[in-house]
Amino acid sequence: MTPPEVLEAFQFALDASEAVRGTTSPNPPVGAVILDASGQVAGVGATAPPGGPHAEVRALAAAGDRARGGTAVVTLEPCNHTGRTGPCARALVDAGIASVYYSVSDPNPIAGGGADTLRAAGVTVHPGLGADAVIHGPLRAWLHRARTGRPHVTWKYAATLDGRSAAQDGTSQWISGPESRARVHDERSRLDAIVVGTGTVLTDDPWLTARLPDGQLAPHQPLRVVVGLREIPTSARVLDDAAPTLVLRTRDIGEVLDALTDHPDVLIEGGPRLAGAFLAARSVDRVQAYLAPVVLGAGTTAVQDAGVHTVTEALRFRRERVETVGADVLLTLVPDRDQ
Amino acid sequence: MTPPEVLEAFQFALDASEAVRGTTSPNPPVGAVILDASGQVAGVGATAPPGGPHAEVRALAAAGDRARGGTAVVTLEPCNHTGRTGPCARALVDAGIASVYYSVSDPNPIAGGGADTLRAAGVTVHPGLGADAVIHGPLRAWLHRARTGRPHVTWKYAATLDGRSAAQDGTSQWISGPESRARVHDERSRLDAIVVGTGTVLTDDPWLTARLPDGQLAPHQPLRVVVGLREIPTSARVLDDAAPTLVLRTRDIGEVLDALTDHPDVLIEGGPRLAGAFLAARSVDRVQAYLAPVVLGAGTTAVQDAGVHTVTEALRFRRERVETVGADVLLTLVPDRDQ
Ligand SMILES: NC(=O)c1ccc[n+]([C@@H]2O[C@H](COP(=O)([O-])OP(=O)(O)OC[C@H]3O[C@@H](n4cnc5c(N)ncnc54)[C@H](OP(=O)(O)O)[C@@H]3O)[C@@H](O)[C@H]2O)c1
Ligand SMILES: NC(=O)c1ccc[n+]([C@@H]2O[C@H](COP(=O)([O-])OP(=O)(O)OC[C@H]3O[C@@H](n4cnc5c(N)ncnc54)[C@H](OP(=O)(O)O)[C@@H]3O)[C@@H](O)[C@H]2O)c1
Repeated sequence: MTPPEVLEAFQFALDASEAVRGTTSPNPPVGAVILDASGQVAGVGATAPPGGPHAEVRALAAAGDRARGGTAVVTLEPCNHTGRTGPCARALVDAGIASVYYSVSDPNPIAGGGADTLRAAGVTVHPGLGADAVIHGPLRAWLHRARTGRPHVTWKYAATLDGRSAAQDGTSQWISGPESRARVHDERSRLDAIVVGTGTVLTDDPWLTARLPDGQLAPHQPLRVVVGLREIPTSARVLDDAAPTLVLRTRDIGEVLDALTDHPDVLIEGGPRLAGAFLAARSVDRVQAYLAPVVLGAGTTAVQDAGVHTVTEALRFRRERVETVGADVLLTLVPDRDQ
Repeated sequence: MTPPEVLEAFQFALDASEAVRGTTSPNPPVGAVILDASGQVAGVGATAPPGGPHAEVRALAAAGDRARGGTAVVTLEPCNHTGRTGPCARALVDAGIASVYYSVSDPNPIAGGGADTLRAAGVTVHPGLGADAVIHGPLRAWLHRARTGRPHVTWKYAATLDGRSAAQDGTSQWISGPESRARVHDERSRLDAIVVGTGTVLTDDPWLTARLPDGQLAPHQPLRVVVGLREIPTSARVLDDAAPTLVLRTRDIGEVLDALTDHPDVLIEGGPRLAGAFLAARSVDRVQAYLAPVVLGAGTTAVQDAGVHTVTEALRFRRERVETVGADVLLTLVPDRDQ
């Protein structure tokens, strides 16, 4: 049985890691909590931006002497190697930590092995705490990248009940509700890159920035990526200096993924043709469908040409989650690899 | 506080009414339970097909002498008039029932007033028990018809995440999963009428019958209705003798509704053009969207032309329910009349 104070500490660690998601790449967004010998929270930390200290080191710094004889709760196996920062496993031993709980083993052959170092120093190690919440939550994209060498691609779209993302005359404002739009902006601020086709830039001229509820730019902006052979005007909003922008003059999805290797968490925001191309290339790892309780009966569909001609070739997904967001329904799905 | 045995009896009455839904039109599908003086269930009844006894009379018959001094729990106010059967309010009084709980008042000026008759005879009357479950459940269509004089129209469709109801080559088998298909058949067996356009008949040649899980015809079949000016071949499956069929050679949705006045519970099963016409005429009272976790990227969309040209004219709905049915998600929505 995991002690209740450890379960509570895990929740803090999870929240801390989620809070820094998007700001740590290429490092993983990790959360750590130090409990003192009596089980009280002595320090909380999360991964700093690249070059800064790791979560464990920050939590240890906050805990100070109270770490001695205490417990560390970390969302990822403490690292073992000396990169820009010292190895976290060693730092935990040096601080006199008696036991370590962590959620997910480090798949990285260089950084991995921290658990062994801890055990060798006499620290009790408990792996696997809350692994599911971490794997499907803050470390999802980073783990995917570590496992496959490719970025984790989420295709997000907003559509009506009849699958339209714009009306017949091209208007598309307010199809999804304010709660969904706020959520999309919050999500953007935690991403590494956001990708659209030239068609979306030429038609909608979007900013593709992450904004706070008050309209201000969020402190972290993802890389904006525009894909396609056509030239986009230098006046395009996506080329303003609110965030960096990468223009990829290609139609090759593999090339796009290669260019984004250092951006583990990638969002495809459309439009329908680029989405279709990613789907046809089997390069979508997760779908987020914001379905608005609206019927249009005409207009652009959410996907245009995914390489499917007959129903047996249909691209099939598995439901991961169903949520309501204001008046909308958000379906989260992953590819059904068993099909 | 409603006594627990009455709450339990209400659940039995609700189940009994749901079990006869579709078999009682033009009468309402009502459920009734008689509790004896000690609170034990003495009899359960539901409306018989037209010409047969009402729910209360059947429940009283099952209870016999045990009804004396007992309680009746009914989903609709007991009727007051002598139609093909005697008034139920009088039957309850004659059987010596001491108190009556009912869910919904009878909106019918002829049949209504049963509660007054009961009170005048010294019976204690408690209206409103579980009203919401009855209004949104078994009596939904019947109450709508009683209130508006028109049938209650449900538009049901199955579509992919991108709003397609068939692939590019016209194939549409297995878009929704087996659980959804079983549910549609079960639902059909409880309906009064099922409506399609000539296009669906000419393209798919469907039977439009309700089938049991073993493939046998369900005991109750809804009226099959085909709408449109084109002639359908006499060999069309919808014209077989498994169920009655009405061919309406019109494109006027008002005419269709008029022809179905005696069929309170109507389902529009498509296709996209007929659905669009009902939506454009604001003649859809409920939407049931079976969304399959599938992307096609091409093919027929679920709605074709709902009279909407720009996004401000969009037809807006309010979510009533979100369910999962096997791998699919079922959204139930009602028109957002406040829009
Ligand atoms: N509701 C939503 O979620 C949402 C989101 C975004 C956009 N939209 C709507 O989508 C519409 C624009 O549609 P769209 O399809 O033109 O936009 P798009 O998908 O953003 O852009 C299409 C372009 O992507 C480029 N591309 C790159 N790789 C490709 C590949 N492998 N296959 C095909 N094309 C590739 C092509 O550009 P080149 O021809 O230059 O090579 C193609 O013309 C707008 O009306 C916009 O409002 C809706
Ligand atoms: N997935 C699903 O839920 C589902 C369900 C059903 C069908 N489908 C698919 O839908 C496709 C058939 O499409 P469809 O649009 O031709 O079928 P449809 O909507 O069943 O039939 C269209 C016809 O309805 C008649 N109609 C009657 N009143 C109308 C009005 N007010 N406005 C317009 N038309 C009216 C017209 O017939 P006239 O021209 O004869 O006047 C029109 O051509 C098939 O591929 C089928 O597989 C899918």
